[in-house]
Amino acid sequence: MRSDQSKPGSQEPDVVAGNGLLDRRTFLSGGVAMAATIIGYTLVESAAADPLPIEPWMQKPGPTLLPYDKPSRYENKVVRAAWSSRTEFPEIGSLRTPHHLLNGTITPNGLHFSRIHSGVPDINPDVHRLLIHGLVKRPLIFTLDALARYPMESRILFLECGGNGELLYQKEPAQVGVQRLHGQVSCAEWTGVKLAVLLEEAGVDPKGKWILAEGADAAAMSRSAPLDKIIDNALIALYQNGERVMPSNGYPMRLLLPGIEGNANVKWLRRIKVTAGPTMTRDETSKYTITKPDGKSLQFVLPIEAKSVITHPSPGLALKGPGLYAICGLAWSGYGKIAKVEVSADGGKSWAAAALQRPVLPLALTRFHIAWRWDGGPAILQSRATDDSGYVQPTRAKMIANRGQWGNYHANCITSWGVSQNGEVQHVYA
Amino acid sequence: MRSDQSKPGSQEPDVVAGNGLLDRRTFLSGGVAMAATIIGYTLVESAAADPLPIEPWMQKPGPTLLPYDKPSRYENKVVRAAWSSRTEFPEIGSLRTPHHLLNGTITPNGLHFSRIHSGVPDINPDVHRLLIHGLVKRPLIFTLDALARYPMESRILFLECGGNGELLYQKEPAQVGVQRLHGQVSCAEWTGVKLAVLLEEAGVDPKGKWILAEGADAAAMSRSAPLDKIIDNALIALYQNGERVMPSNGYPMRLLLPGIEGNANVKWLRRIKVTAGPTMTRDETSKYTITKPDGKSLQFVLPIEAKSVITHPSPGLALKGPGLYAICGLAWSGYGKIAKVEVSADGGKSWAAAALQRPVLPLALTRFHIAWRWDGGPAILQSRATDDSGYVQPTRAKMIANRGQWGNYHANCITSWGVSQNGEVQHVYA
Repeated sequence: MRSDQSKPGSQEPDVVAGNGLLDRRTFLSGGVAMAATIIGYTLVESAAADPLPIEPWMQKPGPTLLPYDKPSRYENKVVRAAWSSRTEFPEIGSLRTPHHLLNGTITPNGLHFSRIHSGVPDINPDVHRLLIHGLVKRPLIFTLDALARYPMESRILFLECGGNGELLYQKEPAQVGVQRLHGQVSCAEWTGVKLAVLLEEAGVDPKGKWILAEGADAAAMSRSAPLDKIIDNALIALYQNGERVMPSNGYPMRLLLPGIEGNANVKWLRRIKVTAGPTMTRDETSKYTITKPDGKSLQFVLPIEAKSVITHPSPGLALKGPGLYAICGLAWSGYGKIAKVEVSADGGKSWAAAALQRPVLPLALTRFHIAWRWDGGPAILQSRATDDSGYVQPTRAKMIANRGQWGNYHANCITSWGVSQNGEVQHVYA
Repeated sequence: MRSDQSKPGSQEPDVVAGNGLLDRRTFLSGGVAMAATIIGYTLVESAAADPLPIEPWMQKPGPTLLPYDKPSRYENKVVRAAWSSRTEFPEIGSLRTPHHLLNGTITPNGLHFSRIHSGVPDINPDVHRLLIHGLVKRPLIFTLDALARYPMESRILFLECGGNGELLYQKEPAQVGVQRLHGQVSCAEWTGVKLAVLLEEAGVDPKGKWILAEGADAAAMSRSAPLDKIIDNALIALYQNGERVMPSNGYPMRLLLPGIEGNANVKWLRRIKVTAGPTMTRDETSKYTITKPDGKSLQFVLPIEAKSVITHPSPGLALKGPGLYAICGLAWSGYGKIAKVEVSADGGKSWAAAALQRPVLPLALTRFHIAWRWDGGPAILQSRATDDSGYVQPTRAKMIANRGQWGNYHANCITSWGVSQNGEVQHVYA
């Protein structure tokens, strides 16, 4: 183990904010020499030039390939997880993405979050139909074969449940990690047919201003959306990261409304009805509304506001002694692209701009990075996203003042991770 | 079923090349009205406005969520497949991606192609080490924990086996589809540590001009690469589409050389040795060389030349009667971005530019689309990619003239699909 001291001739990186945050160029490509200089402190465990031991897996050929690959058995804890208090209803709940164990921006299909209201329907794709009706000139029914002849569009998009982060409305910080707190957001390449093309085919009546979308689960989960807000981007998604949509994400097809809260992206889509106004379904009246401090509720708060969270380090990923760390996390906005992510190591007293992984795509998860030299003392890590509309992710105090303690949905405030002197990380309010 | 005739007031799209190819703007967003007009011919099977039947899966709640999701049981034929003649050696071979059953540009982790030389090693990540040695000042050994403290970079990149498409060197067109012919190319978001950062840490001796990379499989599969050609882009990849690299793609780490033939992207990476020149390993001498017509062989032909293939339609995906179809496919180049893909429906007599799915990323698969009205007669579909270096994908005749009949590797010529009057599609030479 090499010691934590500068090498001869090394340059000290610029400290750009309190408690050890370092210049973001430290980690950009092109800044390699500088990065190496500052990374060199603690990371190498041996300087031996001798060959490594020949491990058992090199001593005889391994098994052959699987037709459909799956993760190593050593990764069997990298799974979606639930925290339901209603174990008597296994068909209601959600499984969350373990972002603290992932990296990059794409969520693999096995680990994309899923919220279900009546289990996962086992749909026969040859029997399944999509009906487009209501205020249209020509009601239409589509098979999967019919849709296959339409042009497809692919987009890398985040999806977030409107309820993601709901624990941030609690008075005391929930002692949970990033999976439990923010695991109902994921990102995939979705491919499908533009809804606009199918509606043009059906011929929308001038009085048709909204749609009702209905799923083929046993709950027939349904949501309304205003056509003028969704028509430019909406997809009938048939593929998720290249393969058919996963069963728990809507196989064989789902509505995909880029940037709009997950629940409105109706899975197992069977019906689009063009309507004059909202239908006022269960999931947009008794649920998915935001009750304000004055007792009135906001309805149809559809786009997801800018949000970010640090995934590394985070609870469960303890720091192993003072020294240099790469802080990274995810940012997203339903209003467009992430323009900036700032990071603080001193609970919001000072901030420094993180590097954004390119390309920054609109309505997709964006990975941010910054270098941090932890001195071994207490620290509070935060991230704050700004999107290209100029909207800035609020503090928790500001969110609560605006939405009240009973808001429940669209909890997009800054998340704070407290680092203790032993390197443990926990959720705190700051 | 509606008939194949124009609707009142419809605009005829522009025919842009022989045998029914239509203007690429037909399918671009913004051209919705036009698209609907031309799509409307054949696709709708019923105009009923009555509710759809309530299928069995809507009549009771479905099963609960899986911790790690997997495709629907109705998709159990969407798998990687092998065509090995050496079934007595299951630890040697390759499994290929079923591109005719996928869409978009990302390959899901279960279906990324894999080539193995001695099976899939079952590596314990806590024991696995990466050694960097040879012509360096400080030989270093890295654990996974050590690498986790380095900054990560994410890139969406294609990987292609140098042997992909080898059947195109045969004298007669192999009667196979896109999976058998071109299934050894895939695309994923890879995340890892830049090799340059680790080499800077080790301190490369001025005499160090190449690397040797060695895998921890039982074959210790090894390849050399010149540092000046790879150092800007090379990654030690730890994550594949967000999760840890799949076992058959190198778990827990692989070398990732963007744009360079797959075999050099050493899986299960255990050792990087900095050397003065190439090491002349088995897989760069007896294999992965290109024997020219004069009997001499090209060695270290590392970047993948521009290539494309139509995936829909292709063998196994028969056309269902005359009418409008969306032709789509994939294009890629190891030299940069795809600048243009042209499509022909008349065996190369005339060509029209396809639309490219945005964003077009360098060294990634790019999806292209064009509209085609099939008149029910014989047709030969081809695609031809041009990259941003100006290189144009060659005809098969030109490739054979240049490389000879025994080339075997880097078969990047134009692929031709013959469409017969019954709608069947087969591989032809044209």
